[in-house]
Amino acid sequence: MSKDYIATYQAHTNIALIKYWGKRNQDLMLPVTSSLSLTLEAFYSQTQVHFAKDYASDQFILNDQPQSKNEVQKISNFLDRFRQLKATDLKAKVTSYNHVPTAAGLASSASAFAALACACNGALELNLPQKELSIMARFGSGSASRSLFGGFVEWEKGQGDDSQSSFAHPFDEADWDIAMIALIVNQAAKPFSSRQAMQHTIESSPFYALWAEEVASDLKHIKRAIKARDIHQIGQIAEHNAMKMHATMLAANPSFTYFQAESLQAMEAVRQLRKAGLTAYFTMDAGPNVKIICPYSEVPAIQAHLSKAFDPQNIIVSRPGPQPFPIPTFKN
Amino acid sequence: MSKDYIATYQAHTNIALIKYWGKRNQDLMLPVTSSLSLTLEAFYSQTQVHFAKDYASDQFILNDQPQSKNEVQKISNFLDRFRQLKATDLKAKVTSYNHVPTAAGLASSASAFAALACACNGALELNLPQKELSIMARFGSGSASRSLFGGFVEWEKGQGDDSQSSFAHPFDEADWDIAMIALIVNQAAKPFSSRQAMQHTIESSPFYALWAEEVASDLKHIKRAIKARDIHQIGQIAEHNAMKMHATMLAANPSFTYFQAESLQAMEAVRQLRKAGLTAYFTMDAGPNVKIICPYSEVPAIQAHLSKAFDPQNIIVSRPGPQPFPIPTFKN
Repeated sequence: MSKDYIATYQAHTNIALIKYWGKRNQDLMLPVTSSLSLTLEAFYSQTQVHFAKDYASDQFILNDQPQSKNEVQKISNFLDRFRQLKATDLKAKVTSYNHVPTAAGLASSASAFAALACACNGALELNLPQKELSIMARFGSGSASRSLFGGFVEWEKGQGDDSQSSFAHPFDEADWDIAMIALIVNQAAKPFSSRQAMQHTIESSPFYALWAEEVASDLKHIKRAIKARDIHQIGQIAEHNAMKMHATMLAANPSFTYFQAESLQAMEAVRQLRKAGLTAYFTMDAGPNVKIICPYSEVPAIQAHLSKAFDPQNIIVSRPGPQPFPIPTFKN
Repeated sequence: MSKDYIATYQAHTNIALIKYWGKRNQDLMLPVTSSLSLTLEAFYSQTQVHFAKDYASDQFILNDQPQSKNEVQKISNFLDRFRQLKATDLKAKVTSYNHVPTAAGLASSASAFAALACACNGALELNLPQKELSIMARFGSGSASRSLFGGFVEWEKGQGDDSQSSFAHPFDEADWDIAMIALIVNQAAKPFSSRQAMQHTIESSPFYALWAEEVASDLKHIKRAIKARDIHQIGQIAEHNAMKMHATMLAANPSFTYFQAESLQAMEAVRQLRKAGLTAYFTMDAGPNVKIICPYSEVPAIQAHLSKAFDPQNIIVSRPGPQPFPIPTFKN
């Protein structure tokens, strides 16, 4: 292998409307339930991978910062899956830029691992289909499986311990009047990872026992609502689903929550938007930020209201985003 | 009837460690589950009732303010039960002082209706036993049934639609090293009553289906812990029980919460107290205040910590409180 195995991809993050919360198989990253998300235009990762003889070991540079041994090990494990397919042991340098507030519940790992999977596929000329890349991305971060596609995306939980049965696929292009507004209430890193939080919830929250059937029902209903482009229904189902997820955490033992003062304020602000006749619903992930589902056509009115209580630079509007695509190679 | 039918009682509020959340029979005020509380010395109501021919209609003066028609009607309905037992139709004037922040989750209705039940019993010389008064108080407010006793009190849910089977009884005198600290984070009136909140939760929260069995288990375990005077166990069980109740609300559709910014801050402060080696657990009711369960001997150390983040006048320490007792008649 003498040629340059290099490729660079951009992948967009996604926000689940029907949440992924809990693994049935930790080693295989198989989820307890299916989930459904919207890919966002405004938040993305740009990731380059370069496999070459020059590298004695894998390197990982994120936002121009060399990463810790632990982080490099996670990336190496991920690269190993691609090296295996190519039957190579070339080490690689991974260079990535996250245009997402890291570890604050905006799922930077989703776009990061989706971009890296695409870059590996491109660099090593594996020509894997997107379904296969979705499965590969899943091993980096469960939600990354969904960032392989644009618009509304469904991640199928699959069957039993069959890794090949659990992957994402596009559900709806979202090429209609819909948007998401992220209210960034705190960009500090999370006090605990979503991986730990999930596991603690599964082990100690009595209400987790009902989670899977709630998701199954919510998923069925939101798919109908998306096809009908009924944003009120979509929003109501998504809001209820998110709050049920947060309720399973509150009922864990000991209890915990990702809610912060400003999260409460943001959720209350969305309730007030509805009282003012606007179409707005909230969702929240494993972090304090609040995301608002709304028609794109109502964004100006919603922004005007929110700007009274929140710093405008913390109000980030996004249209639905595309699937990953190749971008020019970074200069090193 | 020519003599003066008048009596004045003081009754103390109580905070449930195992919560009462939901009625199985609204008309009879029969609860879905049993519950267990600690009566508090620091918060109480003083209530006088005067049945006399002079009154053309019932009157109700709370904290020197004549109350609305609606409030008077509630009191009239309550008085009717006592008038029936005495076979009288004398109207009454009820004068009450609440030494509890009204409607902010410190259960002023519990002490208020317990005091009124005792005052009616005294004024009309009914000589009802306390068990019977607990049943009568229940009709005013469910949690009032528990304020008929001091220390730790259990309210038995009873059987079916048998009103006589659901009453409170003393469980433990709490005459040992235990205290409660109320952190008053907001004395504003509640946005919705606990009665409405309960009903909305029962009707729309999927997790409410598991509430009864959680309470049954928590109740069994906390009773053992109280008998063992194991305050760590008591605190852990109470904290988990309270958060499960709040989780049922969060999972309602639409979701709601009594959490406010300062409630989150107060709960986090209690977690930090534990990290600092102190013995402190929190509970929360249908309001934003946070109450801390701790040994009385650790109160000075806990107060010192809390005073850094909270206004000392909002930190109210209470020892366990007594059962209701007669006090001198108010001057009119």
